Amino acid sequence: MSDVKRQPTAVDAGLLLARVRAQRPRVHCLMNTVVQKFTADGITVVGGIPSMTSSRDEIADFVAKADALTINLGTLDAERRAVIRIAVDVANASGKPWIMDPVHCDYSPGRLEFARELISLDPTIVRGNRAEMSVIGDTRASLRIQTGPVDELSDGERRVSIRNGHPWMAQVTGTGCLSGGVIAAFMAVEPDALTAAACALSVTGSAAEIAATHAQGPGTFEPAFLDALASMDANELNQRARIEA
Amino acid sequence: MSDVKRQPTAVDAGLLLARVRAQRPRVHCLMNTVVQKFTADGITVVGGIPSMTSSRDEIADFVAKADALTINLGTLDAERRAVIRIAVDVANASGKPWIMDPVHCDYSPGRLEFARELISLDPTIVRGNRAEMSVIGDTRASLRIQTGPVDELSDGERRVSIRNGHPWMAQVTGTGCLSGGVIAAFMAVEPDALTAAACALSVTGSAAEIAATHAQGPGTFEPAFLDALASMDANELNQRARIEA
Amino acid sequence: MSDVKRQPTAVDAGLLLARVRAQRPRVHCLMNTVVQKFTADGITVVGGIPSMTSSRDEIADFVAKADALTINLGTLDAERRAVIRIAVDVANASGKPWIMDPVHCDYSPGRLEFARELISLDPTIVRGNRAEMSVIGDTRASLRIQTGPVDELSDGERRVSIRNGHPWMAQVTGTGCLSGGVIAAFMAVEPDALTAAACALSVTGSAAEIAATHAQGPGTFEPAFLDALASMDANELNQRARIEA
Repeated sequence: MSDVKRQPTAVDAGLLLARVRAQRPRVHCLMNTVVQKFTADGITVVGGIPSMTSSRDEIADFVAKADALTINLGTLDAERRAVIRIAVDVANASGKPWIMDPVHCDYSPGRLEFARELISLDPTIVRGNRAEMSVIGDTRASLRIQTGPVDELSDGERRVSIRNGHPWMAQVTGTGCLSGGVIAAFMAVEPDALTAAACALSVTGSAAEIAATHAQGPGTFEPAFLDALASMDANELNQRARIEA
Repeated sequence: MSDVKRQPTAVDAGLLLARVRAQRPRVHCLMNTVVQKFTADGITVVGGIPSMTSSRDEIADFVAKADALTINLGTLDAERRAVIRIAVDVANASGKPWIMDPVHCDYSPGRLEFARELISLDPTIVRGNRAEMSVIGDTRASLRIQTGPVDELSDGERRVSIRNGHPWMAQVTGTGCLSGGVIAAFMAVEPDALTAAACALSVTGSAAEIAATHAQGPGTFEPAFLDALASMDANELNQRARIEA
Repeated sequence: MSDVKRQPTAVDAGLLLARVRAQRPRVHCLMNTVVQKFTADGITVVGGIPSMTSSRDEIADFVAKADALTINLGTLDAERRAVIRIAVDVANASGKPWIMDPVHCDYSPGRLEFARELISLDPTIVRGNRAEMSVIGDTRASLRIQTGPVDELSDGERRVSIRNGHPWMAQVTGTGCLSGGVIAAFMAVEPDALTAAACALSVTGSAAEIAATHAQGPGTFEPAFLDALASMDANELNQRARIEA
């Protein structure tokens, strides 16, 4: 797994999940208020320890204690921008991995401008939907993830598709942010970002497939999804994970 | 349906719901942080596309892209007031419908004063409980909705009562805000506000009745309610909707 | 129950819960945004009326109307500190009980400093986990609660252990804040803080045990927990409550 050119597999997904559960990485999350609890729940049940503060006075302390950082551009204002810059500085100075999701950067010129500023600070991963990734342009050395029914990952050398998931994920607010938190937890225990992200997305996608069999709609899907994440293991992933070159 | 004096019916509810699902209106929501996810989930499962930013830098862009706006006076401070004023200006300048819920205006003189300022800017709908609507006074040309076990709607010419719902709605934080978001989605596809609101409330109220049959208490009621909203259709509404003149 | 030296019992838990349901105390909550809805839901289903505003303009009005206050040090910034100070002033001036939870005061010197400032203002209860309570030091006349698999309460004269609960509580973000809100609701109807808190924790802990029998994991545990809180009664508490001297 230290060979960064290797293609990840379902076996990797099981091993990384076990590593997260054993090591309990701390994941700091900067995101809009809308989906903080659901994201925190998701990080917790895969084995991580989430923290959420967005206070300018506290952010440096919390990121210093974290093992990875996830940033989501929800509800951007001057204060939020300042806090994100501090968080990124601390993460970069201490070599912690971070993932950036330029949410709705296609809606707002100000948001797009800030997203590009963050890209210039070299996030480990940049992840968005098709519309966001097309306006964001060049992402330099970062791993790119384009989300969709199939998630497409590319690091300039390898391309990977994740074919796990369920349409109800799009009906529940926050599954994207939650997945970003889980990717961060996996990055904290695996230096190859493409492997970490591919495994994390096969875990959340497989959990969605299982959850759909225990739910009657997008409402009951949500608690079932957290149950499935909590009980996910290597056996389940060997059967379900669809990580394809 | 273009005859604004006509009384809405259960058939209208089914037609408007289908219209929302087909047109996918964007609903921007300014509300307190407490219930943002639940409201976003509700708008999504009826077919709308929710957005939630309350940043002063972004609000004009987001309201410009929205088809309707819902404003809830939760956690009011100077910044929130400024953002709401910008949102209302953009909505009024571009003829987009907006609904205002003067939450707890009976608790706080400052909140009541601001609620009255917003009423002077002519919301399409003003909606509150009995205590709030009695202190708010005259609402000019806006449609009035007084919520309760029976919701009462009046636009100066027609009066409509909606007799759908379930007591567990009052046990779940946010069902009111969620209903406001659904009303906004219906306003985006139907110019007659009373028809839009009556249909929206018969949809959320009917979903509550169905959900109660699949739940064991207010906790399990919440995911069941979202399931029922997601699967609501014209047949169900023909049987359940109680829209009465 | 007016003899403050008496040890609380399961019978007290049933009586206090009935009192909360009858009196409907208003509980104002200052906490991070992450868990506001879940906390509000918990307060509502035990019979209280939650409010959540953290606006500097409104806080005095809302605390004046409240019967008890719960403060959780999530996401602390200068504005939040100012609002908390106002809330505490109003509570102390009008003799309302308040509980303080110094969340993560072991992560951040600034947070610890503020926690100690609040302790000097004499909260009715200070409650934290082992790490937080050990760094916080002396809590003067406040009732101390150290949370854990067994909750330990001490007021300088009596010691009580609460042996109710379930491991899934630690997997769901917000069960701690929700418990703080329920303790506040019980404080509003019972002047002996140790009795109020012991009863409240036996209620939430018993609800967790019941919920676990109706859930398949931490995700479905959450709605089941709210169901169990909603339907909790004296009979259930007589069987389950484990309040031990």
